[in-house]
Amino acid sequence: MIVTEKDSWLGMIFAVHGTTMESIWPRMAVVFFWSVLITTSAFLFPDHAYTLTMAPFTVVGLALAIFLGFRNTASYDRYWEGRKLWGCMVNVCRSFTMQINTLIDDTVGENNPQPSDEVQQQRLHMVRLVICHIHALRHRLRETDPAADLEEQLPGDQQLHHDLAQDNVPAAIADRISRQINSAWRSGRLDAYHVPLLHSCLTEMMGIQGGCERIKSTPIPFTYSVLTHRTVFLYCMALPCGLHDTVGMLTPLVVTLVAYFFLGLDAVGDEIEQPFMLDDNDLPLLQLTTMIERNVLQLSGRPDEELPEPIQPVDHILI
Amino acid sequence: MIVTEKDSWLGMIFAVHGTTMESIWPRMAVVFFWSVLITTSAFLFPDHAYTLTMAPFTVVGLALAIFLGFRNTASYDRYWEGRKLWGCMVNVCRSFTMQINTLIDDTVGENNPQPSDEVQQQRLHMVRLVICHIHALRHRLRETDPAADLEEQLPGDQQLHHDLAQDNVPAAIADRISRQINSAWRSGRLDAYHVPLLHSCLTEMMGIQGGCERIKSTPIPFTYSVLTHRTVFLYCMALPCGLHDTVGMLTPLVVTLVAYFFLGLDAVGDEIEQPFMLDDNDLPLLQLTTMIERNVLQLSGRPDEELPEPIQPVDHILI
Amino acid sequence: MIVTEKDSWLGMIFAVHGTTMESIWPRMAVVFFWSVLITTSAFLFPDHAYTLTMAPFTVVGLALAIFLGFRNTASYDRYWEGRKLWGCMVNVCRSFTMQINTLIDDTVGENNPQPSDEVQQQRLHMVRLVICHIHALRHRLRETDPAADLEEQLPGDQQLHHDLAQDNVPAAIADRISRQINSAWRSGRLDAYHVPLLHSCLTEMMGIQGGCERIKSTPIPFTYSVLTHRTVFLYCMALPCGLHDTVGMLTPLVVTLVAYFFLGLDAVGDEIEQPFMLDDNDLPLLQLTTMIERNVLQLSGRPDEELPEPIQPVDHILI
Amino acid sequence: MIVTEKDSWLGMIFAVHGTTMESIWPRMAVVFFWSVLITTSAFLFPDHAYTLTMAPFTVVGLALAIFLGFRNTASYDRYWEGRKLWGCMVNVCRSFTMQINTLIDDTVGENNPQPSDEVQQQRLHMVRLVICHIHALRHRLRETDPAADLEEQLPGDQQLHHDLAQDNVPAAIADRISRQINSAWRSGRLDAYHVPLLHSCLTEMMGIQGGCERIKSTPIPFTYSVLTHRTVFLYCMALPCGLHDTVGMLTPLVVTLVAYFFLGLDAVGDEIEQPFMLDDNDLPLLQLTTMIERNVLQLSGRPDEELPEPIQPVDHILI
Amino acid sequence: MIVTEKDSWLGMIFAVHGTTMESIWPRMAVVFFWSVLITTSAFLFPDHAYTLTMAPFTVVGLALAIFLGFRNTASYDRYWEGRKLWGCMVNVCRSFTMQINTLIDDTVGENNPQPSDEVQQQRLHMVRLVICHIHALRHRLRETDPAADLEEQLPGDQQLHHDLAQDNVPAAIADRISRQINSAWRSGRLDAYHVPLLHSCLTEMMGIQGGCERIKSTPIPFTYSVLTHRTVFLYCMALPCGLHDTVGMLTPLVVTLVAYFFLGLDAVGDEIEQPFMLDDNDLPLLQLTTMIERNVLQLSGRPDEELPEPIQPVDHILI
Repeated sequence: MIVTEKDSWLGMIFAVHGTTMESIWPRMAVVFFWSVLITTSAFLFPDHAYTLTMAPFTVVGLALAIFLGFRNTASYDRYWEGRKLWGCMVNVCRSFTMQINTLIDDTVGENNPQPSDEVQQQRLHMVRLVICHIHALRHRLRETDPAADLEEQLPGDQQLHHDLAQDNVPAAIADRISRQINSAWRSGRLDAYHVPLLHSCLTEMMGIQGGCERIKSTPIPFTYSVLTHRTVFLYCMALPCGLHDTVGMLTPLVVTLVAYFFLGLDAVGDEIEQPFMLDDNDLPLLQLTTMIERNVLQLSGRPDEELPEPIQPVDHILI
Repeated sequence: MIVTEKDSWLGMIFAVHGTTMESIWPRMAVVFFWSVLITTSAFLFPDHAYTLTMAPFTVVGLALAIFLGFRNTASYDRYWEGRKLWGCMVNVCRSFTMQINTLIDDTVGENNPQPSDEVQQQRLHMVRLVICHIHALRHRLRETDPAADLEEQLPGDQQLHHDLAQDNVPAAIADRISRQINSAWRSGRLDAYHVPLLHSCLTEMMGIQGGCERIKSTPIPFTYSVLTHRTVFLYCMALPCGLHDTVGMLTPLVVTLVAYFFLGLDAVGDEIEQPFMLDDNDLPLLQLTTMIERNVLQLSGRPDEELPEPIQPVDHILI
Repeated sequence: MIVTEKDSWLGMIFAVHGTTMESIWPRMAVVFFWSVLITTSAFLFPDHAYTLTMAPFTVVGLALAIFLGFRNTASYDRYWEGRKLWGCMVNVCRSFTMQINTLIDDTVGENNPQPSDEVQQQRLHMVRLVICHIHALRHRLRETDPAADLEEQLPGDQQLHHDLAQDNVPAAIADRISRQINSAWRSGRLDAYHVPLLHSCLTEMMGIQGGCERIKSTPIPFTYSVLTHRTVFLYCMALPCGLHDTVGMLTPLVVTLVAYFFLGLDAVGDEIEQPFMLDDNDLPLLQLTTMIERNVLQLSGRPDEELPEPIQPVDHILI
Repeated sequence: MIVTEKDSWLGMIFAVHGTTMESIWPRMAVVFFWSVLITTSAFLFPDHAYTLTMAPFTVVGLALAIFLGFRNTASYDRYWEGRKLWGCMVNVCRSFTMQINTLIDDTVGENNPQPSDEVQQQRLHMVRLVICHIHALRHRLRETDPAADLEEQLPGDQQLHHDLAQDNVPAAIADRISRQINSAWRSGRLDAYHVPLLHSCLTEMMGIQGGCERIKSTPIPFTYSVLTHRTVFLYCMALPCGLHDTVGMLTPLVVTLVAYFFLGLDAVGDEIEQPFMLDDNDLPLLQLTTMIERNVLQLSGRPDEELPEPIQPVDHILI
Repeated sequence: MIVTEKDSWLGMIFAVHGTTMESIWPRMAVVFFWSVLITTSAFLFPDHAYTLTMAPFTVVGLALAIFLGFRNTASYDRYWEGRKLWGCMVNVCRSFTMQINTLIDDTVGENNPQPSDEVQQQRLHMVRLVICHIHALRHRLRETDPAADLEEQLPGDQQLHHDLAQDNVPAAIADRISRQINSAWRSGRLDAYHVPLLHSCLTEMMGIQGGCERIKSTPIPFTYSVLTHRTVFLYCMALPCGLHDTVGMLTPLVVTLVAYFFLGLDAVGDEIEQPFMLDDNDLPLLQLTTMIERNVLQLSGRPDEELPEPIQPVDHILI
């Protein structure tokens, strides 16, 4: 995610980094040279110069704009839903930690000013499993290897190797949390009435995981992307034939500006369609997971030196 | 669903497979030959050539674009809702499996490191019923016969024959899960407080089933589809009359390009309106159900050789 | 609801039945004769023929298209929400039936392979009350008399007469279900922990009822409909004055085609605004309620001869 | 809310009452006389008559139409959300009444064919508090005095005076319902497991109240309304300068018709932005609250003579 | 938030304060002087004056309008979601207060007309923690220091210093509420069945907090803002080249008016994108938190002199 001051209106006019300029300039160059070619040949051989007039471009341009608008809305909805899911993850991790730290205790329903070491260890273990879940989910969404991060949370854990071998590592971690809830209840540390409360947190975590996997695995239907790309391309290539008789030698300039807008709109939709990757405008999953880790460890009363450093933007980019 | 690399912008421009090209080329051909006819006759008999001018086409073209945009949004919402429902199915099956494997045990609320064989069998039976439910739902949505898949899960099951004869096979399977929950509770293997937890999973599974059936059984109102198809058709057929006096002999080319865009937008909406079938852009239900089956069996600790193979795309198509 | 094959693209072009053609042809005829009048008089008295040019029509046509798009979206949302509500009704009735058939038993939390006749009667009575509720709701939404359908479900029931006299028959039926839940609990047939589970089903049924009543009783604000109708009418009547100088004698044809599109869009919105009535494109409530009745009776193990016949489309129309 | 037959398409064309005509005719008159002035002076002094041509009006008209569409969508969403909230209020009041009438009884979990007078009084008192809540909410939203309506429900109630003095009367009433639930539980008339059920109804009532207060207290941002009003005004005032050279003496007529549409769209958005007041198109809160009162009293078995008369539309207006 | 009478249509036409005029006038001035320059040079050197004609402006203007509409919708959704979250906060604080004041008592499930001082103190302490949470959240969203407000609520509190040092102060406060619930249950003042009820209120408060933090920390993707700003700017700067040959010396006026609309639309989106700050159109968080504080203290029976004064608008602005 790009972190920058939006106050400077003028600065944004001339920004390059983080805009779509980097990906669309080759296409714009093609359109520019093509329209130079068309305009020049129309100037040299005026008798053979056909014009399409602007009328068909108005009609198609409008339909194209509406369709691009639709595609942008769909892409942005994916982006924003992804952000909402991770926002919910923040909430549920905090709530889960609070519930683990209060509802699980040596005995059920009795005052216990100082929980035993065993209970404290179980609590911390569960919190660390929650942290493992979000790190594993991040790695899954970004297609990287979660082993290092998980081993840092659970050093020397026997079962971790087995979990990492499963199809779905975050689900395997969630299964371990579920077993911890069960063992806490069956060993008399958790009230039977409160099992559904903890399970609803776990279910919500799995629902968030499923939502993220859905966004990742199901892009906008291929046929939409093809129709958009193709029509934008044809439109920009045909535009000089419609403009050269009225605009004259300025045609390449005008065509390139119009192409900038349409190609830009098209590319923006592409860029945020997959919000979990490492593109400039994607969601800062590393920053979010580190923040969650800090939050839940603080809520569990861990000292500051155990907390990871918060992630800072590098060159205005948060990853 | 089409699984392909979206990185190649140029490749998408020239793609044919999985785009709407296959279904709309006959219509485009009709439009092309019709406009050749109109243009030629206007060229041969200029005295009798009427022109409609582009003005009415601009107005109607805009309204048409907005209406096509509305229809595409409605179709895409159906597609995405279908995907969301199956995403929820993934989540609920995983959560359900975790709950079955921890909350059902020989006794209620006591530590039991090694559950008895009977309990383990009941757990596995319930997990297999969950798998049956999703396979039965897939077959129902695709109008195929679920018998083979269900018998593979429940070999030699007596009641299966009776279930397959009911109107709604997935509902019959869900009813069996409901009876299993009941029997677990009444035989002292499940806490009464946790019955609502398991029932809420089951209710959610039935809600997802109902949602899919709703999308399948209720298309976008017929009157919308007729109005769209008819107006697009009339528009493309009338377009040569509006263009030939300004564009001249290029009219057929321009008309065909415009027709490509409008007919394409119209056809895209049609294609994803029913997202559960076997069209190129439809949802990969077989891949999803197989993935769920693998996930829940892994979470139940079944060895790898019992798991089905994950479905791979064939010729870039996941079914 | 119109049930037809959508595969035939050409067939839809020439369909009449179930399209809005039946309701808008008088308006189209008025527009046609009016534009013949205008065009002819402009032809006979060219000195007095004013033209408005197309410029104002472009501007207003666009705004009109956007506004019609807004209204269609609002109408379609009502239609789809109505369908969603009935889809939820399907789900909740199935879940409710399963819960009634397992959670209510002679004793609480004990194995009971063969429930007593009394319990079986209470279960069936409750399921029949659920069926009564949906039939009563259908009759309420369609403003017909529910007495016959309810008496068929509850023959010889004493209280039915009293229920039918209340303002809101479905609510009176729901009240009876609520009393049955209460009596089952107080007579020791239902666990106190499971009362909220059954009540949540009932609450959801009432929520669906309320949602349907809301859609029925609150149309799109009158002022919107008036503004739409009036502007479409004025637009079509003024259109010949804008076209006759460029399009000439083809004006009536062009105007009628444009009018078809705008009047059609306007009429489509009207038709599905009230989705519970008996228009061609309305929701098939009779088919849905019959399907629910079949489903819940099958889930309760009733023999096939007790089930009502499923409703089949008559002349491509499901009611 | 305007209650009228929508069947008469022609009748709606000529309707005046309940359309925005009443509020916008002064603005239309200003626009008309202004355009007469412009047109006449352009006719008298053709040498000094500037024309702006229609080109800028096309561009701005479109952007304006899209922006008006956005604003209408936002207004309508507010209206429909308000209606949804009151629809939920209907549901929750009915469900709450059913639960009060069954779950609260002399003893917990035992059969009790005839509840004692005290219990019956407490039930009726709670139902009357529910009715008080909705009346108090209606008065709060319409900024009227709730005292009379509340005293009618609770004659001679001591605490009512204190409640009416609080900042938020409906919240004070809800607090009393909460205390009644508590007292029922603590006096052994309500099962502890069912307290959350009743509390969830109460929470939902408060959620509805909060939603209505939110809609009332937060209009669409001022800056939006200003931008809309101002641009519509400037657009209509400048329009004659763009039209007079092509349309000639018909300019005032055309301008007024265009102004009708844009001013009408603008005014419609204004009118339903605040849906709880007494404008013609606002929600019929009095009818809704009276209907709820009738419903819940009937469900509590009160005789017909105790029920209030249903509210009928006066001159096609329901308030 | 701007609090003003919307009745005066004419007043809004001439409003300056609270509209975007303050932020966009420099840009409008640039556009104005630039178009004076272009127009004058075209007038002085007509032979070298190129015109772009209006055709490309129509196409791009439309696409731009649709894109601005998309961006405004996204911004407004953020604004309205922020408002909804705070509206939910109002509801949940009221419900939470009612539940704290009834469900926590000296003993569980017994009548207790006069709660002990200790219980009353614990109740008030919990209510004050709820108030602290909303104040801390407001300060966090506005990036101000919460210490003063929190110390006013909890004078002499030992732990406050520690809470204020945490990364996330509102989460630290919520953790304290969670511990209070736990202590109430474990000391026999709260029924185990009602713990989930209180926890669900707390979870909702944390969910609202997370939602607000999400809106604050994730603006609309940078690339969107750049594309909008840049295209609006280029469009306005190029517009004189398209208009000067038809509109002549009025070009600067027309361009400035068109620029007002596009720059205004662009700036409106910017202004409400971050709804929690202190801009004129932002949400009145101080007024909302003060209102919640008054409400919950009144519901807890505190005397009027303990309540804070309600916040009044200053110069039509609520903060």
